[in-house]
Amino acid sequence: MSEQPLRGVFAPVLTPFKSDLSPDVARWIDFCRQLLDDGCNGLCPFGTTSEANSLGMDERMDMLAQLVDAGVDPAILMPGTGTCAIPDTVKLTKHAVELGCGGVLMLPPFYYKGVSDDGLFRSIAEVIERVGDARLHIYLYHIPPIAQVGFPLAVLERLSAAYPHTVVGMKDSSGDWNNLQATLTALPDFNTFTGSEKFLLQTLRLGGAGTISAMANVIPGHLRRLYDGWLGEDAERLQEEANVMREYVRSYAPIPAIKAIIGQRAGDPAWRTVRPPLVAMDDAAAQELFSAMGLERGVAAD
Amino acid sequence: MSEQPLRGVFAPVLTPFKSDLSPDVARWIDFCRQLLDDGCNGLCPFGTTSEANSLGMDERMDMLAQLVDAGVDPAILMPGTGTCAIPDTVKLTKHAVELGCGGVLMLPPFYYKGVSDDGLFRSIAEVIERVGDARLHIYLYHIPPIAQVGFPLAVLERLSAAYPHTVVGMKDSSGDWNNLQATLTALPDFNTFTGSEKFLLQTLRLGGAGTISAMANVIPGHLRRLYDGWLGEDAERLQEEANVMREYVRSYAPIPAIKAIIGQRAGDPAWRTVRPPLVAMDDAAAQELFSAMGLERGVAAD
Repeated sequence: MSEQPLRGVFAPVLTPFKSDLSPDVARWIDFCRQLLDDGCNGLCPFGTTSEANSLGMDERMDMLAQLVDAGVDPAILMPGTGTCAIPDTVKLTKHAVELGCGGVLMLPPFYYKGVSDDGLFRSIAEVIERVGDARLHIYLYHIPPIAQVGFPLAVLERLSAAYPHTVVGMKDSSGDWNNLQATLTALPDFNTFTGSEKFLLQTLRLGGAGTISAMANVIPGHLRRLYDGWLGEDAERLQEEANVMREYVRSYAPIPAIKAIIGQRAGDPAWRTVRPPLVAMDDAAAQELFSAMGLERGVAAD
Repeated sequence: MSEQPLRGVFAPVLTPFKSDLSPDVARWIDFCRQLLDDGCNGLCPFGTTSEANSLGMDERMDMLAQLVDAGVDPAILMPGTGTCAIPDTVKLTKHAVELGCGGVLMLPPFYYKGVSDDGLFRSIAEVIERVGDARLHIYLYHIPPIAQVGFPLAVLERLSAAYPHTVVGMKDSSGDWNNLQATLTALPDFNTFTGSEKFLLQTLRLGGAGTISAMANVIPGHLRRLYDGWLGEDAERLQEEANVMREYVRSYAPIPAIKAIIGQRAGDPAWRTVRPPLVAMDDAAAQELFSAMGLERGVAAD
């Protein structure tokens, strides 16, 4: 993996499905390319927004291999590889490293609840030891609202101290600015991404790495302008405009809503398909959302 | 699979690990045989107590195949096969059916939270359709304190109505007698197991199937006497004695505590090993537990 840390606007790429619920890999690769063309600095296949945890082990490895085979630069990829079980996390992580991915986004084991800091530390340490590859760069994925199990700051500090060349960053999807601020302050050399783009400007002002945000699927160019221009006079306005876009989506279940938006832009409602346990947005809600966003008149410029 | 529903005392079998954290399969098979000799009607390899969700896909399939190869009757096995992702659940479930297992214990997809009843129904329905095997018998696994995502009664009713020969029972580990009672009352033909043996007598009195309980690793004979003798005059006393044993363990993290007890009986502290994110019981706590249970003087009679 590259020694250059990953920074900027990363999309946890949506996973399009066919009507039989299998991943539509060709459409997915096209969408990955489009996100990069539209402004993303890099991509996180298999994030929460990607419905990664609804994909099987084999599907994840097969899709990633096809994406790299299709010519997308693995150095700007940070696939999600964290599962409940060390051997499966090791398998996905090794595969990503061998494909040359610039980093991996790693959930903690999330089935058992109320686990200790020591148990969390040992989980990630065991994965690192088993992968045993200097090219491995881990970005820890802190998303307690969904995974329930997160990475407390004490665990981040211990892991980054023990493995400074491997545990190089994190994504904070706690939704809690205080937690993000504490991490940015305590670990200034860490590459900390905000999981919510609403904190992007604040994150960059404290030396953060950027954002890995569901909304990067929707407004990649807008977020890129904010990332590139955070010192400029338009920064506050760009942040406020991003916040408005965010609120449209957050009135609904976000993943089905974002898939509906992309489908509307593409003129193809097949994009709305999600895998159970999620349920696709229905027509009435979709029309309401499109109307609010001005999308019924065609493709929204980004 | 057998047309005879599974009933009685089932142990979610502990998984012993070697010092390198690999499963000690020979020791595991011996322990499975011992539990059956000591009174279990059947076994649930890969339950929560088994640290199933810390085992990899390949480990689970390999262990189950070795257990059946070793001569344990698959008709009395109900392995856990539910994962976050439909394809992985299908893979484990097909494998169990092909080995002749009498049932499978199926967690709902548990990563995404706040999912709808419809999404839960579709998840299990999709697994059933993909497995597509009349020998499949599913026992749904409701354990909201850990998985966070459970099976509401409305989903149980809908699944058992849609697939009456396939969705034949459930394990209720909610810890909530009201939920268990509501299920036993609403679905009298369902094979409902209590996940806590403290409700065993009450469950049997309402026509329930038995218990799948962590404590069946510790007191299989005692629970079997209660199951067989629930109409007898000793039933209340046997239930109360089981409740006392339960409280010893529940003062600690239960899985490490139960592993410590089995290790003390076997005279082998290697049994204490757990996989991260769990942490093994330390010596001081173990000695305190053994002393409370009278285990420091040797093997506790069951």
